[in-house]
Amino acid sequence: MIRARQLFGPGPGNPYPEATAALGLPILGHLDPLFIAMMDETCDMLREVWGTQNQRTIPLSATGSAGMEAAFVNTVEPGDVVVVAVNGLFGQRMVEVASRCGAEVVAVEHEWGLPVDVDRVLSAHPSPKIVAAVHAETSTGVRSDVAALGAGKGDALLLVDAVTSIGGLELRADDWGVDLGYAGTQKCLGVPPGLAPFTISERAFARRVERPRSWYLDLGLLGGYVGEAASSGGGRTYHHTAPVAMVASLHAGLRRILDEGLPAVWARHEEAGRILQEGLQARGLELFAAEGHRLPDLTTVVVPEGVDSAAVRRLLLERHGIEIGAGAGPYAASVWRIGLMGHNARPDAALTVLAALDDVLAAVG
Amino acid sequence: MIRARQLFGPGPGNPYPEATAALGLPILGHLDPLFIAMMDETCDMLREVWGTQNQRTIPLSATGSAGMEAAFVNTVEPGDVVVVAVNGLFGQRMVEVASRCGAEVVAVEHEWGLPVDVDRVLSAHPSPKIVAAVHAETSTGVRSDVAALGAGKGDALLLVDAVTSIGGLELRADDWGVDLGYAGTQKCLGVPPGLAPFTISERAFARRVERPRSWYLDLGLLGGYVGEAASSGGGRTYHHTAPVAMVASLHAGLRRILDEGLPAVWARHEEAGRILQEGLQARGLELFAAEGHRLPDLTTVVVPEGVDSAAVRRLLLERHGIEIGAGAGPYAASVWRIGLMGHNARPDAALTVLAALDDVLAAVG
Repeated sequence: MIRARQLFGPGPGNPYPEATAALGLPILGHLDPLFIAMMDETCDMLREVWGTQNQRTIPLSATGSAGMEAAFVNTVEPGDVVVVAVNGLFGQRMVEVASRCGAEVVAVEHEWGLPVDVDRVLSAHPSPKIVAAVHAETSTGVRSDVAALGAGKGDALLLVDAVTSIGGLELRADDWGVDLGYAGTQKCLGVPPGLAPFTISERAFARRVERPRSWYLDLGLLGGYVGEAASSGGGRTYHHTAPVAMVASLHAGLRRILDEGLPAVWARHEEAGRILQEGLQARGLELFAAEGHRLPDLTTVVVPEGVDSAAVRRLLLERHGIEIGAGAGPYAASVWRIGLMGHNARPDAALTVLAALDDVLAAVG
Repeated sequence: MIRARQLFGPGPGNPYPEATAALGLPILGHLDPLFIAMMDETCDMLREVWGTQNQRTIPLSATGSAGMEAAFVNTVEPGDVVVVAVNGLFGQRMVEVASRCGAEVVAVEHEWGLPVDVDRVLSAHPSPKIVAAVHAETSTGVRSDVAALGAGKGDALLLVDAVTSIGGLELRADDWGVDLGYAGTQKCLGVPPGLAPFTISERAFARRVERPRSWYLDLGLLGGYVGEAASSGGGRTYHHTAPVAMVASLHAGLRRILDEGLPAVWARHEEAGRILQEGLQARGLELFAAEGHRLPDLTTVVVPEGVDSAAVRRLLLERHGIEIGAGAGPYAASVWRIGLMGHNARPDAALTVLAALDDVLAAVG
């Protein structure tokens, strides 16, 4: 029996139909001229969703967390100072990853559920090499002001996690001064997980580590893999075998988004999130993320007193085939995370979640 | 227009139909009980194709080259001695990757086209931490004797690249004394590229680096992701979001192979390779790999004097939709690589390549 879930957790969401269809097509060789053209178009479209002109904008051949690792491993040498804004799980992870690269990490801790305090982060160290922050914290459902960090960063490189914003929320890497950005495919881009859309500015590339400890994620080598160098056969420099099926799926998902138009896609995420959040509040449920800083695509809800969080999630899955997420870290049992991302960012999906929650809360109450 | 290529290069090959079909199914959440069961079954089936009982046998969420990186980054600390048998491009890459981990590398160089000289490798250093070799060199089409390395390795850990052998050639990791192995999905496993089947023995795990420089590939953290630890919700420890579509495809490809039976699959690869190699020699073409050590699944052919290698490959692609590979490294223009792997390991595929080569060689001759 094939089970078709409605994936309303923090990701993956249900892919755009175009992205699923592309996975079923015959694959191409990774050096086929048709695949190379598809990769070029994919990078072009990634530049549009990132809001950047960066030449080095590529899908890394691993999941979003490898994008985080690529960002740090290519820029941090032992002893470099990295200021990390920590307002959730993914800020904590940045601290861990940067520290493994040998960084002297200055972690600026925030209460979970609040956005990044730009002034505190920018004054945490007089001359960091890198200032790092999460645009949309998947663990808390909070959006932070990347543009303000970019405006005040001085000579530092600005490194941004856009896993839960890309393709669903306004994102303008160049206008905001983002030097390094990584994302995933399985949230608002509406593609299954497996690739990490990545971008790096010329300024950051010029300051990179010459021979990073990771060969697989070495951006100096990856340049020839997707773009700049051409081997004698008119193809690309061989670095590793591109995950061709996933790239085809990403290509189709990006085309779908750009055909609809980024502002329309952003507005659709806003609308779906508003319907969901208003509906939850109308039912007396409390939202976890601070008002005014809530993500539209990922809503965090406080589990009501006396309600068994896991039982609700299990019943939603078993009775309705609907997945929502547990909370993250210390909020595993006390918060739910509901994502309406990519293909699922629709009013009818918002109404579906609300109706199913009504049913299940009545059943467990 | 959808182009359906016949992928007879060094990989990817055309996936098994079952593996492609699985990519088109609705995806599951990465913490869904159904996905967790699918991941468990995938690891069980991977143990069968590796020929191992190792508990820690998992599909890493990146391509085969990341498997190489995971093997070294989890076991090498600065100053550790690593002996690498180099008889092609992937041995060279091992030297580079181990060296970035800080290893003191002893590279045992061989002429390309020859198998690993077991005695030279085993006597290269009195007490290495690791001895590393490629089972099936994708760059040269040569098979080496892993069992002999295992028999003589002493206390060292044996690290093996099985990218071009797994699922197509006899592979018995436990019987042969393999401590660390990595592979890819896009060759004889008959699945698109994107995952790295990986295995590590208890003995090697006990000697691993406690906090490797890579967070993404840290095997200590990945244990909870696929197997051992269970979170309060009855699920897995969250490490990163599994590439669920690719895992579903690998699951389907492995099931296809095990339904047919490993000995039957190996025999099919042998037969297809024999037909191809005999056919090439009957046409007066010279094989590159040393006789007696030729891979059945990947055949290397010397480009005849005066023939433009790239023109032949281009014409095969344009006229017949058939891809074969150029040579690797110094043999880029003087060798072709023809793969009959996984779904393509069939007599009719061997005859197809031969017929198409006849046509194209006549056209350029």
